Amino acid sequence: MPAPARAYVFGRANEATHPDSLRATLAELLSTFIFVFAGEGSALALDKLYPIDTGVTRPASSLIAIALAHGLALFAAVASSINISGGHVNPAVTLGALVGGRISFIRAIYYWVAQLLGAILASLLLRLVTAGMRPVGFILGSGVGEMNGLLLEIVMTFGLVYTVYATAIDPKRGSLGIIAPLAIGLIVAANILVGGPFDGASMNPALAFGPALVGWRWRHHWIYWLGPLIGGALAGLIYEYLVIPTEAPLHTHHQPLAPEDY
Amino acid sequence: MPAPARAYVFGRANEATHPDSLRATLAELLSTFIFVFAGEGSALALDKLYPIDTGVTRPASSLIAIALAHGLALFAAVASSINISGGHVNPAVTLGALVGGRISFIRAIYYWVAQLLGAILASLLLRLVTAGMRPVGFILGSGVGEMNGLLLEIVMTFGLVYTVYATAIDPKRGSLGIIAPLAIGLIVAANILVGGPFDGASMNPALAFGPALVGWRWRHHWIYWLGPLIGGALAGLIYEYLVIPTEAPLHTHHQPLAPEDY
Amino acid sequence: MPAPARAYVFGRANEATHPDSLRATLAELLSTFIFVFAGEGSALALDKLYPIDTGVTRPASSLIAIALAHGLALFAAVASSINISGGHVNPAVTLGALVGGRISFIRAIYYWVAQLLGAILASLLLRLVTAGMRPVGFILGSGVGEMNGLLLEIVMTFGLVYTVYATAIDPKRGSLGIIAPLAIGLIVAANILVGGPFDGASMNPALAFGPALVGWRWRHHWIYWLGPLIGGALAGLIYEYLVIPTEAPLHTHHQPLAPEDY
Amino acid sequence: MPAPARAYVFGRANEATHPDSLRATLAELLSTFIFVFAGEGSALALDKLYPIDTGVTRPASSLIAIALAHGLALFAAVASSINISGGHVNPAVTLGALVGGRISFIRAIYYWVAQLLGAILASLLLRLVTAGMRPVGFILGSGVGEMNGLLLEIVMTFGLVYTVYATAIDPKRGSLGIIAPLAIGLIVAANILVGGPFDGASMNPALAFGPALVGWRWRHHWIYWLGPLIGGALAGLIYEYLVIPTEAPLHTHHQPLAPEDY
Repeated sequence: MPAPARAYVFGRANEATHPDSLRATLAELLSTFIFVFAGEGSALALDKLYPIDTGVTRPASSLIAIALAHGLALFAAVASSINISGGHVNPAVTLGALVGGRISFIRAIYYWVAQLLGAILASLLLRLVTAGMRPVGFILGSGVGEMNGLLLEIVMTFGLVYTVYATAIDPKRGSLGIIAPLAIGLIVAANILVGGPFDGASMNPALAFGPALVGWRWRHHWIYWLGPLIGGALAGLIYEYLVIPTEAPLHTHHQPLAPEDY
Repeated sequence: MPAPARAYVFGRANEATHPDSLRATLAELLSTFIFVFAGEGSALALDKLYPIDTGVTRPASSLIAIALAHGLALFAAVASSINISGGHVNPAVTLGALVGGRISFIRAIYYWVAQLLGAILASLLLRLVTAGMRPVGFILGSGVGEMNGLLLEIVMTFGLVYTVYATAIDPKRGSLGIIAPLAIGLIVAANILVGGPFDGASMNPALAFGPALVGWRWRHHWIYWLGPLIGGALAGLIYEYLVIPTEAPLHTHHQPLAPEDY
Repeated sequence: MPAPARAYVFGRANEATHPDSLRATLAELLSTFIFVFAGEGSALALDKLYPIDTGVTRPASSLIAIALAHGLALFAAVASSINISGGHVNPAVTLGALVGGRISFIRAIYYWVAQLLGAILASLLLRLVTAGMRPVGFILGSGVGEMNGLLLEIVMTFGLVYTVYATAIDPKRGSLGIIAPLAIGLIVAANILVGGPFDGASMNPALAFGPALVGWRWRHHWIYWLGPLIGGALAGLIYEYLVIPTEAPLHTHHQPLAPEDY
Repeated sequence: MPAPARAYVFGRANEATHPDSLRATLAELLSTFIFVFAGEGSALALDKLYPIDTGVTRPASSLIAIALAHGLALFAAVASSINISGGHVNPAVTLGALVGGRISFIRAIYYWVAQLLGAILASLLLRLVTAGMRPVGFILGSGVGEMNGLLLEIVMTFGLVYTVYATAIDPKRGSLGIIAPLAIGLIVAANILVGGPFDGASMNPALAFGPALVGWRWRHHWIYWLGPLIGGALAGLIYEYLVIPTEAPLHTHHQPLAPEDY
């Protein structure tokens, strides 16, 4: 997608202060803001329609509304940032790209901070526009154990980051990259239709953290960090080392790549 | 998307009377007509299914129907006009492009008039085909203050116009522009799933004005002008001056660009 | 989308018997079959879930199911035939292309017959797989007059065929043509969310005719022919003569174009 | 989509052991895993929301949730594997490609085993994450005979594999191939909205087999093998021999093609 012959070389030396790093970080912040505002906001919208205590056992049409809000907004958020920052919008995606050697550690730190800030900003603004509704975030459904929820987050995030790798990072993706943001958004929507009634289906630590902080709900919160990070790292490792052909390697782990390279 | 080597040069001198300006204006009118007919029409369709007084507190499946009708029709409307007029279909998008220096003021005026006329025409035809149902337009939900609604419109329209800028205007968008109309339509659908129960979620003064005029409902109407215009202008300024890289500038603010240039 | 340098020239002389004409006709038949099977089939599926007498006043989730079944299947059907036949899948689209001078009259006749045969075959197979359920087709909702329904079909089909023209026929559409099938399918879904409760929202005489014949329901049937044909012709004329720029004309009305040319 | 000038030639001699065969097989396994996890998982999610005995007669919003989960996940799964394995994710698609001469028999065997393993793995993990819920798989609705269900699976799978052929295999598909994964996923969603209340709408023996094995439910199971395989083979034969033009043949049946060739 990016022009293959960019005029500058993106090296480790000036990465922390290069304007492109800052722009990419800003793009991650704003895209995560747009995504979390719609995702968490749709949960509040349904609380407005159907005032209930827990956000988990809602009727099927509510589940669809939440799945679509997350999936469609994530599509737009990834599309809006994929040419600038790679379109991660999710700390677990950033971890997958990091363990696969696709971004440098310093850039990952920048992205993680930006993603969390975007999610917090979205949660704060949601509190303002809803006249004080408390963000709900994620919670385990009744009868769902912590290990069940953890494994579910691992599996669903594996599917998400595998899709990110195959459609947006794989150097052989070709013109398929055009629909990458849509595939990324819609696998999240599909997975919410699965995981919603069991553990809310986050697949994204920033999406869980912002509402947890602003709504001050920390029960089971560790699940929504550990699960997505394990799943994202697994997907990055499996795709990078087993699925991408070894002929004609396009990258090396000693030299981090610019977003333009993937 | 447009052929890079168009045969004519689009200058300020003949902009008001050039056939391409008139065609672009016609395309904005017809696309806004198609969008508002489906968007406002879906609200009337649900009033037909579930006769109720206010259009705000409907069940979740109604919210999904309205979100999809707006989002899918906006996708088609933007796709149908993006190569001709830039695919604004929304006065707030036109304002964002104006403050970012992407269109001239005279073209913005043309577009605004066309968008409002298209919305009015759609609302009149809806009254005819529904045997006289009164368009509902937008209203604040119970317990939602004017400042809440205003801020909500600002934030949601920011997300919409940011998506428009990143996918359809940014000179570096590359082949990503192919899915721009879809991202634009679907971020509107996602935001309606958030804002619907609170303020109806317009993000578009034309979408609010047409039904308000034909249905003669003006309560809180200023919110649906001021909010989207502030949000759209903010997104245009932030994207244009903070996100777009400064190297290799592709435009100048002293010379308005033709739609072919973005 | 088609290779610009095809080896043969498609002239009027051998159009009726040329293998490409026959393949295009077969593609129209099979695509219309796939579309009508899903569209009308979704109405029967909801009759199976909620046995009721009329197909019009269903709850909102049923309306969404029917809209999505039509829209998503039409997307696949148009995508499957757009490179072979132009992806009409609808006699009203064929009429729009005919009045705009984009196909020859003899090809239009072929397509119309194929579309009707595909719709009849789909309706017959639906009767078999559902163990004899009677296809429902289209009917006016309660309180909807014939003139209301006729005008509604005209307006909705105008939006559909305008989208077809702008995204799939306009010689200046460029890479936008890649998402043409999606825009075409989804504007139909959006319009069903509007017109469903009023007149069923056909926009396609073949979609109305197949179930009407197999289910033998002819009440108001003329509306579902006259409305879409008027709307489709209007869209073809307006887009062809007002929206497409006149500079550098790419076609002439004295020489019908091959599908490869649009 | 794949780079046209790949460095190696994929011949029959080393197909069984070539790294690309193994990678393609792994991609089929993982993509089918992601798809079946979301598809079957959405059925379990609705059982969690609405505990009922049979998975067939659910309300319309449940039907939409299941259709979207299958369709959107299949889109991501096909997008993730189309450049590596051709994106079959379905034994019936593999059979269609085999009878059309597009893949070799040995590769078909590899894919079938991988697809079944992926489906079994997904079903096992679903049992774990749901704390022991029994996968539901597919069953005929009340009043639906075996011949009805068989014919329904044939017709729906015909539509699916016809779409696969037209958008992802046809050498003349051109840039249309970019949206092939979306068309493939969404025709499945549309068909589920039709077939769901009658026979569950599988169109995919792996999707039926994994849950049947783990949930140990074998009633009517043969229908979900025979129907999709007949429908897929029919679509492959009809598209390959009637729809694809014979001029300039791009393949021969004596020499199987690599995925790079289609």
